[in-house]
Amino acid sequence: MATNRIGNLFTVTSFGESHGPGIGAVIDGVPAGINIDLKAIKLQLNRRRPGQSHISTTRNETDDFDILSGIYGNKTLGSPVCIWIPNKDQKPEDYENLSNVYRPGHADFTYDTKYGFRDPRGGGRSSARITAAWVAAGSIAEQGLKQRYPDISIIAWVSQVHKVKAGFSYPKNRQEVDLSPVRCHDINAARLMEEAIIAAKEAGDSLGGVITCIVNGCPAGIGEPVFQKLQARLGEAMLNLNAVKGVSFGTGFYSAEYKGSELNDAFISENGIIKTSTNHSGGIQGGISNGMPIVFQVVFKPTSTIGSSQLTVDDNGKETQLNATGRHDPCVLPRAVPIVEALTAITLLDLAIIQTISRWD
Amino acid sequence: MATNRIGNLFTVTSFGESHGPGIGAVIDGVPAGINIDLKAIKLQLNRRRPGQSHISTTRNETDDFDILSGIYGNKTLGSPVCIWIPNKDQKPEDYENLSNVYRPGHADFTYDTKYGFRDPRGGGRSSARITAAWVAAGSIAEQGLKQRYPDISIIAWVSQVHKVKAGFSYPKNRQEVDLSPVRCHDINAARLMEEAIIAAKEAGDSLGGVITCIVNGCPAGIGEPVFQKLQARLGEAMLNLNAVKGVSFGTGFYSAEYKGSELNDAFISENGIIKTSTNHSGGIQGGISNGMPIVFQVVFKPTSTIGSSQLTVDDNGKETQLNATGRHDPCVLPRAVPIVEALTAITLLDLAIIQTISRWD
Amino acid sequence: MATNRIGNLFTVTSFGESHGPGIGAVIDGVPAGINIDLKAIKLQLNRRRPGQSHISTTRNETDDFDILSGIYGNKTLGSPVCIWIPNKDQKPEDYENLSNVYRPGHADFTYDTKYGFRDPRGGGRSSARITAAWVAAGSIAEQGLKQRYPDISIIAWVSQVHKVKAGFSYPKNRQEVDLSPVRCHDINAARLMEEAIIAAKEAGDSLGGVITCIVNGCPAGIGEPVFQKLQARLGEAMLNLNAVKGVSFGTGFYSAEYKGSELNDAFISENGIIKTSTNHSGGIQGGISNGMPIVFQVVFKPTSTIGSSQLTVDDNGKETQLNATGRHDPCVLPRAVPIVEALTAITLLDLAIIQTISRWD
Amino acid sequence: MATNRIGNLFTVTSFGESHGPGIGAVIDGVPAGINIDLKAIKLQLNRRRPGQSHISTTRNETDDFDILSGIYGNKTLGSPVCIWIPNKDQKPEDYENLSNVYRPGHADFTYDTKYGFRDPRGGGRSSARITAAWVAAGSIAEQGLKQRYPDISIIAWVSQVHKVKAGFSYPKNRQEVDLSPVRCHDINAARLMEEAIIAAKEAGDSLGGVITCIVNGCPAGIGEPVFQKLQARLGEAMLNLNAVKGVSFGTGFYSAEYKGSELNDAFISENGIIKTSTNHSGGIQGGISNGMPIVFQVVFKPTSTIGSSQLTVDDNGKETQLNATGRHDPCVLPRAVPIVEALTAITLLDLAIIQTISRWD
Repeated sequence: MATNRIGNLFTVTSFGESHGPGIGAVIDGVPAGINIDLKAIKLQLNRRRPGQSHISTTRNETDDFDILSGIYGNKTLGSPVCIWIPNKDQKPEDYENLSNVYRPGHADFTYDTKYGFRDPRGGGRSSARITAAWVAAGSIAEQGLKQRYPDISIIAWVSQVHKVKAGFSYPKNRQEVDLSPVRCHDINAARLMEEAIIAAKEAGDSLGGVITCIVNGCPAGIGEPVFQKLQARLGEAMLNLNAVKGVSFGTGFYSAEYKGSELNDAFISENGIIKTSTNHSGGIQGGISNGMPIVFQVVFKPTSTIGSSQLTVDDNGKETQLNATGRHDPCVLPRAVPIVEALTAITLLDLAIIQTISRWD
Repeated sequence: MATNRIGNLFTVTSFGESHGPGIGAVIDGVPAGINIDLKAIKLQLNRRRPGQSHISTTRNETDDFDILSGIYGNKTLGSPVCIWIPNKDQKPEDYENLSNVYRPGHADFTYDTKYGFRDPRGGGRSSARITAAWVAAGSIAEQGLKQRYPDISIIAWVSQVHKVKAGFSYPKNRQEVDLSPVRCHDINAARLMEEAIIAAKEAGDSLGGVITCIVNGCPAGIGEPVFQKLQARLGEAMLNLNAVKGVSFGTGFYSAEYKGSELNDAFISENGIIKTSTNHSGGIQGGISNGMPIVFQVVFKPTSTIGSSQLTVDDNGKETQLNATGRHDPCVLPRAVPIVEALTAITLLDLAIIQTISRWD
Repeated sequence: MATNRIGNLFTVTSFGESHGPGIGAVIDGVPAGINIDLKAIKLQLNRRRPGQSHISTTRNETDDFDILSGIYGNKTLGSPVCIWIPNKDQKPEDYENLSNVYRPGHADFTYDTKYGFRDPRGGGRSSARITAAWVAAGSIAEQGLKQRYPDISIIAWVSQVHKVKAGFSYPKNRQEVDLSPVRCHDINAARLMEEAIIAAKEAGDSLGGVITCIVNGCPAGIGEPVFQKLQARLGEAMLNLNAVKGVSFGTGFYSAEYKGSELNDAFISENGIIKTSTNHSGGIQGGISNGMPIVFQVVFKPTSTIGSSQLTVDDNGKETQLNATGRHDPCVLPRAVPIVEALTAITLLDLAIIQTISRWD
Repeated sequence: MATNRIGNLFTVTSFGESHGPGIGAVIDGVPAGINIDLKAIKLQLNRRRPGQSHISTTRNETDDFDILSGIYGNKTLGSPVCIWIPNKDQKPEDYENLSNVYRPGHADFTYDTKYGFRDPRGGGRSSARITAAWVAAGSIAEQGLKQRYPDISIIAWVSQVHKVKAGFSYPKNRQEVDLSPVRCHDINAARLMEEAIIAAKEAGDSLGGVITCIVNGCPAGIGEPVFQKLQARLGEAMLNLNAVKGVSFGTGFYSAEYKGSELNDAFISENGIIKTSTNHSGGIQGGISNGMPIVFQVVFKPTSTIGSSQLTVDDNGKETQLNATGRHDPCVLPRAVPIVEALTAITLLDLAIIQTISRWD
């Protein structure tokens, strides 16, 4: 069963292992005629790449990529686009002494149970390394979206790290988000988040948090009415990140505490355009975008790999002490920001393509 | 694009409009040889059906169903199972004066934008009425699951209504959940919830809340490692309910506030079975079930249809006053409990079938 | 695995058993806004229905149908269209003494091997009865095609029965085809075919033959370049009819005997339109329609059920004598003409929808 | 729309252009635990590769391949297998003067019509070059099949070139087929075929023919009963080869000329195994394999590229004389033999995986 693929019409198939020769993606269903700027792809890859700052992992990958097919003269041909990112700083030997130990919070045990064995090289497919190709694919999707909807923008940021929450304002662009290595535009909060991450790193511990994402300029009509609702597809995409434990839209979990008379977004007409006066719904009604900003939150658990020693079992069920080696982030959120943007772009382009075939008149 | 279908191998295609002749589902990919108890289907339909208590809508549907195909002598044939539930108490005339008004919180505006027109009969496909067939399909899925995993149980309950939250204990079975018409086994909380719903109903208002679901007895190994992770598929399924604004797993959004050293679930061995000592992950690691209980939360916004008058616009953007008629629930959660169970069963059976083809040895 | 579905975007899921309550189809992916003439559907159903002439089976079904969903006011809503055709003249008792005997040429043995048991009621899913719903779905597809391409026409006819072959001319329309109950517009050939069928019927035997289909007015650009080539999709569709043993395009199997210099269709320009001077390719190049008529041939084996006694085995491998009862056609081709047209329409509309999303400019 | 993919559960996505950096395939849905012999892959690639004999094209590609993912220690991991075959002898300059000319029999015109432009480098995706990756994927599929069904064998051969037909005997293995560069085990016919090909080459012309394929040792039960019948899936696969104009099973197009009483394959029991006494059906009943040899025929038109000058038009519809350069085969059939085998293996493994989930007992 093809479960390494996301998207229904614009489909991204992920391949590659963390410590094999490299990782990549094949995108099938790319419409012909999208103009591609390779530098824009690299820019997003740089925001995700390891070793980019003092608060990220020390694994050092430049994440240079090759386009093996589907683009000719900076234009998509309509044929599949294959993206290839070689692994350069893989160290499978880091994992040798872990090959029969189940790391808490990791997929070692469940992979063994599922397949009867597992790729011992650093998590194999469960490594976040494979998301580099998703980021590249997401940039291609984003360029496709912008070609048709020039006003669309997808901006994610770190809105919470551990107990530090950013204020409620939205960033205007990605540059503002990138002012801090934490990727939070609320400068005061960002400084506290950074301190918390450094403290956790020094303590051999790790932190989680929340990423919020806003999509401005998305036209009304995107998303399907029954299954494949816009929120269902976005939620599904986000929940495919290993550390994500929840996703919510608009007022999210706080919706439970409002009454209908308080939470309904009233329709108004502004200069002939129908809008809502508030946006508790997060820009979605009946599974379909309503033209207001799409807003959602994604919660990440703290990184499972920590520096301190943990008690666990091996594949015979025998107790053992785990002293993690391997390189890891004390807090994955700053590097996850472009991944959230990429999955959003892939999902939106896929649904935008589906939308073009919903009418036959 | 076929967007009325959920599931990849066990696929449920939903059809029918709220105020047309009826609603139904065709399940393709039903393996041959599942023994089906029709009474078990009816039992779940009764828990969802309108008019079941003083806190639900007054639309009165018995939700009797026909199996049009795929089952012979109480056994699935391997051919598609078609479920048909006629509409008996439809009143399209209730919606006549609404055909050009955009009800706040509803899909009227987004449907019009998407398709250029809409079925004016009571929301058409956006009505929760269509979920009756999902409940029937879910019961078939559940029976398939139990045939292979006799110990599996799927139990959802209302854990929050407005500001009233149930305690942390889990219900032992559905009977316990059904002791209150609110479907909450915490009797004290249930009474307060019921009072809150009645008060909202009398005030012409509506309430939201949270449903929690626990799956016991699910074997380890269910769910796919990259896309179609167990949490992604369950989350997607839940987010296809119109009122749902978020979903979370295990410790959920609270995960952000813990450190890795606190949140990691330590592996232990009990009587030769590998388990985790805590279950912050909600029974899922790397997208795959680990044999612990699967636990997740689903938040519902308050019903969009309320009794009080609201300002809105019509399809020309002209301001108008909306005085809702049509019948509706002041709080959808009690009736949504079997729907959450049904979508869980459909998702789990689909992933269990996928799991059977993950190895070739 | 959902293997009762044909089409990728315009998807037709077939359901129902030959001798159960009825048969039907759910079409998901119907674009909104197709105007539907129910009489056109009935017309094609009448051309397929049993008991229509002295050379078809005596099973008598009026094949009245219900549209259970997806159409409102003669217009598709964008939601799934469910078609339901009740069985009225089913006689499961005809098959009682066959429940453990393997009829030669039938699916009894392979179904038993595949599923471990089978629906004994007249072939269940292997009966041609289920194609009635395909014909209805095909008519809906055809109406969708004509709405966008007013000049398109799909005309199939019986071009060979046993050793009698029709001349090489093409029929101008379906009326011409229907002048003979054999559905061949070559009147002389048709008379000989009819005589051959009657002779076979009287001898308790059965005949096969060839149906040819021509699609005029199909625009260039339909069909995909790698997989899902136009000929691959049409061929696949036809080979899903139980009696079909081969399919060929344009010059077909005779292509082997020509040289490249003879068979290449030269491009010419006529009134500014690029055409080919010959049409050996059957209107397809590189998997994509080139604007010339699409022409293909479908060969049907003789009906497996025959009146004379046959030696066979039962499900214990014991030899037994089979004296077929049940009603059947001595030659299925006349009734198969609208089925070939239906599968062609479904395939073409599906590929036409795919074509609309191949560019993004 | 993802139309570069074949297979439903074992899915092969083809990528790459004929004169770009290379071509490849990603296989998603590979079950874990298949032992892979890389030499077996190379063997089949060598049978397909250009420049292998005096009757094939002079383009010289060694078709060395890399496995970029999904296999570790010669065993499939359950993750996607990416195959990469660099282009080494590409000569895009050969096609420079053809960029606005429509070559007869080629996809130039239909690609331009479909996409508005095309990759001018030697046909791009329409080149048979891309089938090299299919052959590699097919070898992996074949190894998966043999692991579960040790007795299975897939053998294709050239049974006709132009007017020369081989006798009716079946080859015992691929070695026998490879005794002649034509890939026909009937030595006398092979010699005549070879002479015909050389004569056509010298005359600047090209020839077509027929490939027959036999699958021995396939268990009964493979193939689905309604859509995705075994013959539909095999036929679809073959018709995705550009030169193929028809496909037939068992007695094929000759079936039309037999009566039911002559063509029915009688069931018999031999040593407790149920077989048929003849095999007119080609090993398939009701869309499902019956345990007898699966036999089918595939007809190829002569190569469209010929050495002699042809009249055609350019993309403005202006008449022009085409003098083909570029390298090509005078007869594609000898090199197409391993491609037919590969597509057969991919289809059979996919259906074999589907078969494992058809029962739930």
